[in-house]
Amino acid sequence: MASLRRAFVASALSAALSVLAAPVQAQQLRPAVDAWRKVHEREILDEAFALMAIPNVASDTANIRRNVEFLTAAFAKRGVAMRSLRAPTGGSPALFGELKAPGATRTIVMYAHYDGQPVAGGGWNGDPFTPELRRYQNSVATDAVAMPAKGDTIDPAVRIRARSASDDKGPIIAMLAALDALKAAKKAPTVNVKFFLEGEEEAGSEHLGDLLNAHKAVLAADAWLFFDGPIHVSGAPQLVLGVRGVMGVDVTFYGPNRAMHSGHYGNWAPNPGVAVAHFIASVRDMDGRIKIAGFYEDVPPISDGDRALGKALSATDDSLRTSLGLSRTEANNAALGERIMLPALNIRGIRTGEVGGGAANAVPTSASVSIDFRLVPDQQPARICELVTRHLLSLGYTVATDPNAAARSTDRAHLAYLGCGGGYTSVSVASTLPSVRAVKTLMGRAYGREPFVMPMLGGSLPLFHFVEQLGATVITVPTVNADNSQHAPNENLRIGNLWDGIGVMAELMAGLGPLWPGGATPVMK
Amino acid sequence: MASLRRAFVASALSAALSVLAAPVQAQQLRPAVDAWRKVHEREILDEAFALMAIPNVASDTANIRRNVEFLTAAFAKRGVAMRSLRAPTGGSPALFGELKAPGATRTIVMYAHYDGQPVAGGGWNGDPFTPELRRYQNSVATDAVAMPAKGDTIDPAVRIRARSASDDKGPIIAMLAALDALKAAKKAPTVNVKFFLEGEEEAGSEHLGDLLNAHKAVLAADAWLFFDGPIHVSGAPQLVLGVRGVMGVDVTFYGPNRAMHSGHYGNWAPNPGVAVAHFIASVRDMDGRIKIAGFYEDVPPISDGDRALGKALSATDDSLRTSLGLSRTEANNAALGERIMLPALNIRGIRTGEVGGGAANAVPTSASVSIDFRLVPDQQPARICELVTRHLLSLGYTVATDPNAAARSTDRAHLAYLGCGGGYTSVSVASTLPSVRAVKTLMGRAYGREPFVMPMLGGSLPLFHFVEQLGATVITVPTVNADNSQHAPNENLRIGNLWDGIGVMAELMAGLGPLWPGGATPVMK
Repeated sequence: MASLRRAFVASALSAALSVLAAPVQAQQLRPAVDAWRKVHEREILDEAFALMAIPNVASDTANIRRNVEFLTAAFAKRGVAMRSLRAPTGGSPALFGELKAPGATRTIVMYAHYDGQPVAGGGWNGDPFTPELRRYQNSVATDAVAMPAKGDTIDPAVRIRARSASDDKGPIIAMLAALDALKAAKKAPTVNVKFFLEGEEEAGSEHLGDLLNAHKAVLAADAWLFFDGPIHVSGAPQLVLGVRGVMGVDVTFYGPNRAMHSGHYGNWAPNPGVAVAHFIASVRDMDGRIKIAGFYEDVPPISDGDRALGKALSATDDSLRTSLGLSRTEANNAALGERIMLPALNIRGIRTGEVGGGAANAVPTSASVSIDFRLVPDQQPARICELVTRHLLSLGYTVATDPNAAARSTDRAHLAYLGCGGGYTSVSVASTLPSVRAVKTLMGRAYGREPFVMPMLGGSLPLFHFVEQLGATVITVPTVNADNSQHAPNENLRIGNLWDGIGVMAELMAGLGPLWPGGATPVMK
Repeated sequence: MASLRRAFVASALSAALSVLAAPVQAQQLRPAVDAWRKVHEREILDEAFALMAIPNVASDTANIRRNVEFLTAAFAKRGVAMRSLRAPTGGSPALFGELKAPGATRTIVMYAHYDGQPVAGGGWNGDPFTPELRRYQNSVATDAVAMPAKGDTIDPAVRIRARSASDDKGPIIAMLAALDALKAAKKAPTVNVKFFLEGEEEAGSEHLGDLLNAHKAVLAADAWLFFDGPIHVSGAPQLVLGVRGVMGVDVTFYGPNRAMHSGHYGNWAPNPGVAVAHFIASVRDMDGRIKIAGFYEDVPPISDGDRALGKALSATDDSLRTSLGLSRTEANNAALGERIMLPALNIRGIRTGEVGGGAANAVPTSASVSIDFRLVPDQQPARICELVTRHLLSLGYTVATDPNAAARSTDRAHLAYLGCGGGYTSVSVASTLPSVRAVKTLMGRAYGREPFVMPMLGGSLPLFHFVEQLGATVITVPTVNADNSQHAPNENLRIGNLWDGIGVMAELMAGLGPLWPGGATPVMK
């Protein structure tokens, strides 16, 4: 496995990462950060435990206030005065603070969120808000591990088990420790650093747009660095340049208004299961190509550079394929890294009648399909909804947006209900932006190895708020382990990843200024 | 409505029923039967109540024995010695008895079943085995009605509410009363009449084939008359010449062996929902045409005569369509009566992932479709299964018949599980058979109106046992009301339909001899 990984990195280096100019080891700050950290591991873990012990579901306003108080005090200790930013429409406050760098020509915002996913449903080995040190084996928490004594170190493979350990309190702890480490190393940030800690990300960021809009001036910056999400599944660092947009679509077709005996009325009364199948077959082929007229009009071609980056990310495709019981994947084993740069139409579910023992010999009354579209830059959710509407019309359906329309319809077999989720657009930045190149260089320094560059995260995050409200350049710098059980029971943070997070944040704050000289704010791709 | 029905009957008469030779009113026995019945309604109802009060679920052997004892005594009273026929493999006994007609050259078997559907699940207005007289409005039991005094008559619109009232104890009561009415009218059967009362029809007739095979000699006959199932929904009598066969097929397609995030792995990991949709679209078009290679090879063309009969049955199509909220039905509003003469592929259900609020942004692990095929004469279930297998192979799938194969597969995306239900073949007789023509003439006499002739019941009944084991000619003569809530709570029998049943059975026993002279047993179509 180790040799495979080396080959992978070498290939990625040669094929895709030639944009890198500065040598990886130059002016590396990491040794100094590590030296400080090695004698302060206990203090860092104590602070992490204290923060993760405070419940942080966004709707729990009393505990949200405790988080705000804790974080305000913790940043104050590092000389950063935090204040609450609120949306005029409500919601949890975001915490904002600023560290000016004398003479700096650039301003960054370091983003994380202090709220977490709900913990209902059980499955935890211990209380979600009573952090523990645990070993993990195949994503399962096993032996408990004792806290290191002051001045001692701990095996970096040990993990902190707690809600929000990785998503996203761990990165906040890394920010605090990075400030300490810089101070200890007598280094100052070379860019103005703003901190923005969101308080309702896991609740859907409902008020975020309003909040950003209300505080545009204080939030002005040359780039936003997002410390959220995991590194590559192989354990390699990765820099994420974009996320796809998403839109949920539900379509329902109708048969008779009561289920009819299939022997007596089948092939006379229209079968909605047949309609839903023909609809799905008409919108997507077996290889993921979307057959809706006009769908690709807004889709820019993948650049050669992005294609090369996607290929570089796909060295683990074969082993993943095998682990999933698949001897082939769609489009003739096309590279996963390339596939997620394309728009996609995923069937989330189909429901009509019953199957197996419960199947009745009947023509069902309706059939529904739930779809999630993944969108790439320039694709607008509203436009997708319009194209699906047109597609249904072209198939001869009347399109209803009221789910109760079928109850009143005298023409059920020609009716299709279409529900379009709000959805949001894709956000991405070009790998050639000076800010991106500088961040990548500094990640390489901090990790001692090149990060993968992921042009597009397959999943979706509502980064569009930052683009829409602030015109921000958003660069995502994940630090936590990929198997962190984010949103799930026994969420955890590998301690080695916390140390890497401290290293990369310190490197970025101290190193961005020289590598990214001031000038006009880079233009969004 | 009355004038529409008259027009319908007139049209059916002129278009389709020209095979009829004898005038409807000739030698009619019905007035004499009615005259006797009118002064014995109370006694008939008392006997019906007594029979229907005995629980009759096939697995309830103690009560099955009580049914057998009751029926044996009831037939003995009419001079018919019943005995139990058993299958060597077990199951409820069938009751068999015989009434020889001196000089007769034909033998018929009058079939009904004395067992009934289970009553679990509630929804009954009163105990299922405590028969009541009730008025019904839109299939709902309303006012209770008192028993008529001896010698008095009852409104024929009143219904008996009890399990098996229509399915199928009512017809047995009609057999008994018909024997009484014939005796009162001093008429004797003109054909040898055998009675065969099955005891496990509602339990799937598991032992019926073995039972028939074990008693071939005593069951020899020129025709079997099946007194089961309802008359036409319009209230018109109908003669049913055949039933379609049926076969259930389940097909499952597979995705990754664990649900994968659709953003990160969608359009890379194959989506089984897409596979099931493309499969369905590949086997059936929107108008019911089956696209499986070779499917229609065994399908004989519909004769002009059958087509005309099918059209005649479809005068109510428009109003049914309207009541179902449909402005069109499949194949450009093709006549329902014709559609059910064709083989059919009905989608009973599709299941993958979730829809609506429960839909997750994931690639599901599998997708299943449940299909019921309806088969016409000459189509064999095993052959259909073979054609579906070939179709899946032609689409590039490996076909597994073990539902657990996917758990072991390393090639899930190329795997399809195919489960073929046993199924059974269609059975039908030609409308031109002398026996059929004679039955039809006598039905016309008994009802005072022509019956519809249904070449093929859309639904399926396991009549093939009688054909396979005995080479029987099976003619179905329904007598009960169409809205009898068969298999459902508040099953009922309209008393007027019971009177009609008595009339038609008496007419058949007394009239078949002269209309259907002896000779070679008619050949099955």
